[in-house]
Amino acid sequence: MKKTGILGGGQLGRMLLQAAANYPVETYVLENDENCPAAHLCDHFAKGDITNFDDVYHFGKNLDAITIEIESVNIEALKKLESEGVKVYPRPAALEIIKNKITQKNFYKENHIPTAPFIITERKEELRNHSGFLPAAHKLAMGGYDGKGVEILKNEKDVEKGFDEDAVLEKLITIKKEISIIVAVGEDGKSAIYPPVEMVFNNDLNLLAYQISPAVITEKILWKAEAIALAVVKNLESPGIFAVELFLDIDDNVLVNETAPRVHNSGHHTIEAAYSSQFDMLWRIILGYPLGYTKSIINSAMVNLIGDPNYKGQAKYLNLEDVLKIENVFVHIYGKKETRPGRKMGHVTVLSNERQELIHVANKVKQLLKVIS
Amino acid sequence: MKKTGILGGGQLGRMLLQAAANYPVETYVLENDENCPAAHLCDHFAKGDITNFDDVYHFGKNLDAITIEIESVNIEALKKLESEGVKVYPRPAALEIIKNKITQKNFYKENHIPTAPFIITERKEELRNHSGFLPAAHKLAMGGYDGKGVEILKNEKDVEKGFDEDAVLEKLITIKKEISIIVAVGEDGKSAIYPPVEMVFNNDLNLLAYQISPAVITEKILWKAEAIALAVVKNLESPGIFAVELFLDIDDNVLVNETAPRVHNSGHHTIEAAYSSQFDMLWRIILGYPLGYTKSIINSAMVNLIGDPNYKGQAKYLNLEDVLKIENVFVHIYGKKETRPGRKMGHVTVLSNERQELIHVANKVKQLLKVIS
Repeated sequence: MKKTGILGGGQLGRMLLQAAANYPVETYVLENDENCPAAHLCDHFAKGDITNFDDVYHFGKNLDAITIEIESVNIEALKKLESEGVKVYPRPAALEIIKNKITQKNFYKENHIPTAPFIITERKEELRNHSGFLPAAHKLAMGGYDGKGVEILKNEKDVEKGFDEDAVLEKLITIKKEISIIVAVGEDGKSAIYPPVEMVFNNDLNLLAYQISPAVITEKILWKAEAIALAVVKNLESPGIFAVELFLDIDDNVLVNETAPRVHNSGHHTIEAAYSSQFDMLWRIILGYPLGYTKSIINSAMVNLIGDPNYKGQAKYLNLEDVLKIENVFVHIYGKKETRPGRKMGHVTVLSNERQELIHVANKVKQLLKVIS
Repeated sequence: MKKTGILGGGQLGRMLLQAAANYPVETYVLENDENCPAAHLCDHFAKGDITNFDDVYHFGKNLDAITIEIESVNIEALKKLESEGVKVYPRPAALEIIKNKITQKNFYKENHIPTAPFIITERKEELRNHSGFLPAAHKLAMGGYDGKGVEILKNEKDVEKGFDEDAVLEKLITIKKEISIIVAVGEDGKSAIYPPVEMVFNNDLNLLAYQISPAVITEKILWKAEAIALAVVKNLESPGIFAVELFLDIDDNVLVNETAPRVHNSGHHTIEAAYSSQFDMLWRIILGYPLGYTKSIINSAMVNLIGDPNYKGQAKYLNLEDVLKIENVFVHIYGKKETRPGRKMGHVTVLSNERQELIHVANKVKQLLKVIS
């Protein structure tokens, strides 16, 4: 059985391990927290820091393959492991491009992949020279995550909020829709593409309300979006799973927002709604099996279950029973002991071929289910 | 989180634990073999003998709930645990009825549940008095499993093959169809019933070729079958998952063959094909959640992957890649290191609403995929 390691033991690792149990594979997880969601679902758990060279190298050196569930890992160690024959998904070179927002944006530009116009900045004071470029988002090159490391600079007055280190100043575009496309790339370079999903936002708060699959877009936009997603993965030259997040602007331009070189939140619905889920697909790639079938069995919506902003402490799931009474929902609780404001604690998938029912049930789940302490 | 133990660490435990990772629950497994399919997927693995009083009692005494993946467990220990407040699924009293074929058959008789006529025997020589009852199946009261402990006695000459211990002599009936119905029973006695599945046999060898869902039966027979399945679980007076195996004879009588008080091979298709799988459903019952939705999302077939009769040793999966190329199949390999003739090594589910496609793909899978060494 192929010895395969996962860097990170969060919910993505957990769902990867649920899927791994369908195949002959020996699984390893490296994570600092031995109570993490994935720790008890692998064959071998190792406590260690995924950003530390020695920890990652020692974890990986006797493995056949290694993958990630988060980008903030030690790339140097992965490169050394790769040079010694360990298969790394995604390839460290691809991860390196994506991990830094400057190299990621330059990658799109060099490969003629449409993305919002941008300027690279190193110091806050440079922003004063670019007031004509505003409104824009100032994004830290490294370490930003889930909305952290991003400041919206509307006009010259906001320049003070900018970052005094390596960052990207990205022109704000007027977004009509946000969509995401998951692409799988096999060891032989063959790819398989999932139907795009659409993010639906709460109008008042501009928070993600739910996502729905498939996205409602014209055929022409679908073709554009698929061509762009495939161009991204082709140029990254790496096997693995990739989530390409795209903006559709008011002129129907399709622009890449960012790419994740791993299983992704926007692919969770594939567990129940697709023939081969994104997690199943990654195992097929790692184990050298043929790519799976990306078609949807049925349409779906997905609601993230986020720690309530007013609670911190041992997690409780308010109205979980009411949600479990709904016939066509699938609940995934990640088993994190502590809730914190905004922490991803689970998700709920809704299946139906009636779009109005998907929207109705997704909103109902969103309103009912709360994570408190 | 509720501490829940599973007696037995085979494939049923493995699939239970894959489903458990969707809920907040702390899982325990008791099994003699620390390399068993479920060992690495639980929070706490305990090495021990599930048929031994002390092992089961010590394993269970600090748990909130306990369930089984096989009937051959120590019932006395489960009774003691139950008396001390541990919730046992199924209730030991129900398990006791089912575990012994004599009490099981008497249970059907006493509760007016149709089943093949039978005679209880204690010694082989008694069989001579019942030659008029032949042809019949002679079944050991205890310890029979997967075809072991059963002898077909066609006529008086075969009496020598009978068992010289507690057994049931069951009249052979002419079977038109074999179907199975999975029923879920909640703590409050509420039940939910899955659509019946039909077993399709290989005509030459009389071996199970595949199972198909739903069974093709008339509405009248469906009603009879459902009524009988519900009567079985109602009279067992226990929460849990039950598989009621039924024969349909040439006169369209529906007869109970046997009942399993646990998740069952005939419910494997529910992982992909039902809203709430049998494994999901058992967790809902144990964790006190509402019962799930038993409706099929899509029709399905299921092929067991059995150790080839000519091989024993480290398992290899012949033509696995060809099967994984088929778009609408889901492969489950149980991760058993050793194959043996007839050993259950995995299963493959096929999804389609076209019955002819289900049959075609199931046969193709059956012909392609072999477990050798």
